[in-house]
Amino acid sequence: MLVSSRNIQIEWGDCDPAGIVWYPRYFGMFDACTAGLFFKATGLKKIALIDKYDFVGFPMVDTQAKFMIPSKFGDEIRIDTTITDLRRSSFDILHTVMKGDQIAIEATETRVWVGKHPDDPDRIKSKPIPDDVVAALKG
Amino acid sequence: MLVSSRNIQIEWGDCDPAGIVWYPRYFGMFDACTAGLFFKATGLKKIALIDKYDFVGFPMVDTQAKFMIPSKFGDEIRIDTTITDLRRSSFDILHTVMKGDQIAIEATETRVWVGKHPDDPDRIKSKPIPDDVVAALKG
Amino acid sequence: MLVSSRNIQIEWGDCDPAGIVWYPRYFGMFDACTAGLFFKATGLKKIALIDKYDFVGFPMVDTQAKFMIPSKFGDEIRIDTTITDLRRSSFDILHTVMKGDQIAIEATETRVWVGKHPDDPDRIKSKPIPDDVVAALKG
Amino acid sequence: MLVSSRNIQIEWGDCDPAGIVWYPRYFGMFDACTAGLFFKATGLKKIALIDKYDFVGFPMVDTQAKFMIPSKFGDEIRIDTTITDLRRSSFDILHTVMKGDQIAIEATETRVWVGKHPDDPDRIKSKPIPDDVVAALKG
Repeated sequence: MLVSSRNIQIEWGDCDPAGIVWYPRYFGMFDACTAGLFFKATGLKKIALIDKYDFVGFPMVDTQAKFMIPSKFGDEIRIDTTITDLRRSSFDILHTVMKGDQIAIEATETRVWVGKHPDDPDRIKSKPIPDDVVAALKG
Repeated sequence: MLVSSRNIQIEWGDCDPAGIVWYPRYFGMFDACTAGLFFKATGLKKIALIDKYDFVGFPMVDTQAKFMIPSKFGDEIRIDTTITDLRRSSFDILHTVMKGDQIAIEATETRVWVGKHPDDPDRIKSKPIPDDVVAALKG
Repeated sequence: MLVSSRNIQIEWGDCDPAGIVWYPRYFGMFDACTAGLFFKATGLKKIALIDKYDFVGFPMVDTQAKFMIPSKFGDEIRIDTTITDLRRSSFDILHTVMKGDQIAIEATETRVWVGKHPDDPDRIKSKPIPDDVVAALKG
Repeated sequence: MLVSSRNIQIEWGDCDPAGIVWYPRYFGMFDACTAGLFFKATGLKKIALIDKYDFVGFPMVDTQAKFMIPSKFGDEIRIDTTITDLRRSSFDILHTVMKGDQIAIEATETRVWVGKHPDDPDRIKSKPIPDDVVAALKG
């Protein structure tokens, strides 16, 4: 599977009074990294992807993160993002946060590909991930 | 004019490595306080207001904040919000952040009442603030 | 065990272009709710707790969240927070996000009670949770 | 004076239910850009700068932003940051947000260079900006 990597410099505003990254910030980074993986795979930003394939998004169903090494203001980290399982209408993501050559955090996500519910535009319903998106993600 | 007040406890995640509120956080608080003022005036949450008056929102045009006293994790502040000027399709807001009986921050906002542009649904266009909203804000 | 509850109104700025809460925001809420549980148990804000017991904090080791029902701008949710396991120097938290009488999210946390490392002030080291904090949390 | 530029891609999580950047996010970007300007001038990250010159930071005293063109999820912006006035212990910053060749936002900041108060370590006191930092900022 394809891997998408992003280097991130930890900013002052990412950190809490203990001087380390306030952990909710990582989830914001991970969300952007998942969008980045789709961009690397398809060449389309998430907004263009949504337009092209007529879906609503890929909301989070389940996420878990294990924090092994904290990062401080001024540190640089690299987040490697890949898909670990692709099902008909859902998929699993793994984000590995590297600090130098050490794993600082491992985070997993399960997301579902959804469109508008055919009977109620205010609701959403899972739909199959398009074949060419699947092919692109498989690299 | 009506004044809407909100008590806010400063949380760990609001603060930076210097142990004080990271200033962008205040703007998030102010945005919620402006919505709170409209709620106090009209009895409608911003989402219901948007539904009822068929507009898009009241985006920020200009904001300024003067920071006089920092607040720390664990502090409690009170934000007093009021309208200082109401024009045909725009208005000015003043947020006063009180720490005990001292003014910690004064922030002003100019926002414009906008709807969808009649010729292009992707664009927005200012429209008059409805008379009963004006009346409600005048208290 | 003690349960601490917090009612939260979903603000405009909590939500993403799909109109629902951007999930990293929930982790920020959970972090404040965990501090709120300690406050309910001990009567001390986290900052006073840190002063009294000479520790550094209770950083996150592992967190997981299962998202069942999305929440939109204007919704009100209630987060019930409790400790599900208390060990010598670590503990598990459960946050249950209620939307009306339905469970919208279940999130777990494992955190560790840490102080400064005796040999290196730049590092941290787990230390036992004080007996009276344990007693207070057990309610 | 030196100009520091940063290209920023607008992420899903930067945007609100209207699909445009939630304005408090810009202040977070500006704070990082000011740190970036000091890095470009001195070759030191803010944390190293604080270590070297024994000060506490440069808290915001006054900031103003004028919003002319909104940015949407998927847009790319460039923020040009420069110092417009350097005084003994305070300075003014201008951030110009460019969208293509149009000015989308202009924001100004006044910050003060502070150290610990000699009589009370819990308080801060302005102190002169070091000569070599001044020289570096003047480019």
